[in-house]
Amino acid sequence: MKQFINAKESLVTEAIDGTLRTAGGRLARLDGYPHIKVVVRTDWDKSKVALVSGGGSGHEPSHAGFVGQGMLTAAVCGDVFASPSVDAVLAGILAVTGKAGCLLIVKNYTGDRLNFGLAAERARAQGLKVNMVIVDDDVALPDLPQARGVAGTLFVHKITGALAEQGANLEKVTDAANRVIEGVVSIGMSLDTCTIPGSHKEDRIGPGKAELGLGIHGEAGIEQVDFSNARDAMEMVVERLAPAIGPGPHVALLNNLGGATPLEMAVLAEELTRSRLGEQVRWLIGPAPMMTSLDMQGFSVSLLPATKADETALAAPVAPWAWPGCVAVGDVAVVALPDGLTPIKPTPSQNDEVRAFIEHCCSIMIEAESDLNALDAKSGDGDTGSTLATAARALTGALDRLPLADQTQLHRAIGLELSQTMGGSSGVLLAIFFAAVGDASASGKDIVDALKAGLTRVQQVGGARAGDRTMIDALEPALDALPRGVGEAACAARGGADATAKITRARAGRASYLSEDSLAGHNDPGAEAVARLFESLAERS
Amino acid sequence: MKQFINAKESLVTEAIDGTLRTAGGRLARLDGYPHIKVVVRTDWDKSKVALVSGGGSGHEPSHAGFVGQGMLTAAVCGDVFASPSVDAVLAGILAVTGKAGCLLIVKNYTGDRLNFGLAAERARAQGLKVNMVIVDDDVALPDLPQARGVAGTLFVHKITGALAEQGANLEKVTDAANRVIEGVVSIGMSLDTCTIPGSHKEDRIGPGKAELGLGIHGEAGIEQVDFSNARDAMEMVVERLAPAIGPGPHVALLNNLGGATPLEMAVLAEELTRSRLGEQVRWLIGPAPMMTSLDMQGFSVSLLPATKADETALAAPVAPWAWPGCVAVGDVAVVALPDGLTPIKPTPSQNDEVRAFIEHCCSIMIEAESDLNALDAKSGDGDTGSTLATAARALTGALDRLPLADQTQLHRAIGLELSQTMGGSSGVLLAIFFAAVGDASASGKDIVDALKAGLTRVQQVGGARAGDRTMIDALEPALDALPRGVGEAACAARGGADATAKITRARAGRASYLSEDSLAGHNDPGAEAVARLFESLAERS
Repeated sequence: MKQFINAKESLVTEAIDGTLRTAGGRLARLDGYPHIKVVVRTDWDKSKVALVSGGGSGHEPSHAGFVGQGMLTAAVCGDVFASPSVDAVLAGILAVTGKAGCLLIVKNYTGDRLNFGLAAERARAQGLKVNMVIVDDDVALPDLPQARGVAGTLFVHKITGALAEQGANLEKVTDAANRVIEGVVSIGMSLDTCTIPGSHKEDRIGPGKAELGLGIHGEAGIEQVDFSNARDAMEMVVERLAPAIGPGPHVALLNNLGGATPLEMAVLAEELTRSRLGEQVRWLIGPAPMMTSLDMQGFSVSLLPATKADETALAAPVAPWAWPGCVAVGDVAVVALPDGLTPIKPTPSQNDEVRAFIEHCCSIMIEAESDLNALDAKSGDGDTGSTLATAARALTGALDRLPLADQTQLHRAIGLELSQTMGGSSGVLLAIFFAAVGDASASGKDIVDALKAGLTRVQQVGGARAGDRTMIDALEPALDALPRGVGEAACAARGGADATAKITRARAGRASYLSEDSLAGHNDPGAEAVARLFESLAERS
Repeated sequence: MKQFINAKESLVTEAIDGTLRTAGGRLARLDGYPHIKVVVRTDWDKSKVALVSGGGSGHEPSHAGFVGQGMLTAAVCGDVFASPSVDAVLAGILAVTGKAGCLLIVKNYTGDRLNFGLAAERARAQGLKVNMVIVDDDVALPDLPQARGVAGTLFVHKITGALAEQGANLEKVTDAANRVIEGVVSIGMSLDTCTIPGSHKEDRIGPGKAELGLGIHGEAGIEQVDFSNARDAMEMVVERLAPAIGPGPHVALLNNLGGATPLEMAVLAEELTRSRLGEQVRWLIGPAPMMTSLDMQGFSVSLLPATKADETALAAPVAPWAWPGCVAVGDVAVVALPDGLTPIKPTPSQNDEVRAFIEHCCSIMIEAESDLNALDAKSGDGDTGSTLATAARALTGALDRLPLADQTQLHRAIGLELSQTMGGSSGVLLAIFFAAVGDASASGKDIVDALKAGLTRVQQVGGARAGDRTMIDALEPALDALPRGVGEAACAARGGADATAKITRARAGRASYLSEDSLAGHNDPGAEAVARLFESLAERS
């Protein structure tokens, strides 16, 4: 399996160093690499109860990511999915424990229990006060009293962290930990196994299947279940949790096991609140990755009965960014749509001259249909002429409802008509052009400057400039020349359009996707349309 | 592909609702489902410049996850990888824009440019001040001026967010956005494609290959490169970025494209700081998922020249949790290992009686070796006898260096010897037992209470209780009976050991993994060892 690592052996130490470097000076490590991998707070004076947790790596942000004010004092990190040694745990304890003592928060795995347990003995032999609690929140196997410790451990970290920060003594902190452990239940579900660095990925969960009650070290789930969708998945999880909790409000912790996307996790959050436990879930932590299993595409839900004191402790601010906070679960707040979404229909008005002008312009586009299609066919799908002609016919048909006597409103209305009748990018760009011309004339600009403002806006939105083989190659020189008369503008437009036949490398628009061969020797159809329009207007004037 | 969704059609609206429900009341949405998917701040009074961004979904936490004080005012969400409609953008603008105006922050994709562009025109026609900036930070294609917008967009969100929050006017906010866009460069690398909901996953990147310069919508990378490890991967990324930046300090943004694990991202952070650009990277945002591409196992690096004002703006606190903060990159802080890791060698002392007692106990274990092995072989690997005998031989050989005259130190020293000579769980548990006995006698307990304290500690750490078919089944009744004499204790131990032959369902220890058939009819070898020890001591006394 490909992974962004250098070597399995150096993975954890390099990751810890990367974490330290980017922790803004909040964290340090003990000088015991590679054997002793312990992350500690730099702002720690041993005046309060120290909280030490840890275990195998691969569960990030647990545990190093939760070291900091208000949560852990030290994290003792093993290699991936491997318990840290007794010496490593002892080093962690000795480094952070003062007179107030130390609580070890250990997940219920034999290796962790033994190694943390023996390290605690050694520390006690040196006169330190050390307590140890064992988290066993997994309810996947209801008959096995030796339940595993999974994401519910975060409740212990956070609640004891808040108490220790407030200066509670070791006994009180330990009691709180044991009370949380007594109350918390968790279960996880996954659609795929995790990829253990240096190992081949196990292909255990077949199509249409999920694992329920999985461990966080790649252990197989208690059962494989049929997977259909997020709602049913959450229903199965809730089914296992419901018998394990009492009545009353709870805090839920929705944990991403690593590889579920934020979209999936947000849908699962929605399903949790909609489930039959939804009423009981008053507070939520996450969704966020907290106790992961490398890249496992799965999630877990942990539930803790909510006491007022726990809510306060869970909501207290902490230094580690990885802690997502604890918020009250609420309804979806919905705000009415704003006014102004439906374009205001312009009041029709008459102006024979303007009407004749528009009809003339439209007729030019309609006449040019087959020529422009033929040009376009040389390098595209041959429909530029038809697109413009169709829009021209529609605009001609809309003349009776246009505000022909109000130049500002007229341009905006033409923009609106075009955006509704022309498909694709060109329709949007022409709509933007006319809307911007309308805006500019509303602010008092003369027609040439207003047209130029439209061109500027089209260039900003569309990203094209002169030389990109678009209609701009004709329109820009035409507008520059327009103050000197329509004849000059027509000349300039024709020159610009003909020059596009030599542009074989385009930066924007459709031509940017085409080869040089398919572009050489013929005009861009959009530029040609602009040239024909100005030429015809020059003849008419 | 299996995903925790209900249906492709409802994915984005359900995910937005899940996000709103768990945002602690900070966010609302417009009442325009399913067509109009706009997330807005609930604490917004239109008194400052509004910042509206958005685009296709699938990039979470962008964009809804960055709506909140100090960052975006509204996010306009399309379906996965699809631009939102003009109406949706217009609704977003109208919902949040007051007299101070609105800045649209748009990534450089044709659909987004056109739809945000036309919506801006419509909003302007209603008298609103609307500016638009287009982010084009991707340097994957150095010759294509139409660069894509990728994770560098976050710099624009954060810096304009801080300015708008301070009350800067629209012109100043727009200028800052354009200055950031001018300076920021990004490039990404991925080891696998993303899984688009409802589509089959494209298997485009072969073994040993990576894509460099990928897009965030599943577009293929600019080139496939050989992938070896994290260091080379970062080197290739740095190779592309270095020519695109000037001298001087920069802020780096290290973005998880979705599916890279925190371990991988931390290693990449370390590699970035070690790279030849490391000296220039003074500040870092991340590593964190910010502009993802669903579950893509990849990362991107964005660089912005660091000005004092930008640093301040980037470091300003914000409401959205998804923003990981901006920290100064530092050295890895290393703290010396604490004293006390090496156990203090006890001062040897003599006591003939104690010496004889220990020798006797050890001889019992050595004599029982083959019997205990035979018992163990009935349900295990047949080595319990050898494990205990080996430890007993080692302890006998260590008698000259033990503090035989100091009961407290002696127990601790025996614990230390056993932890060094016995392998596996039993060694650790016996070490914990003797260490705890030593602690208890140090605190003045008599020997029976001290032994019981050791038993309690072993039970806490090991998790076994009477009835679990372990040595505790003999040890616990023996210690209970010990105040009435060694003979009584021996009787109790024997009774307990023999009762283990009827325990066929164990909760703890190795027996918990074995079938009933393999356990029935013979004693647990650990309990048998304890019984034999007490029986022999009773005979001797």
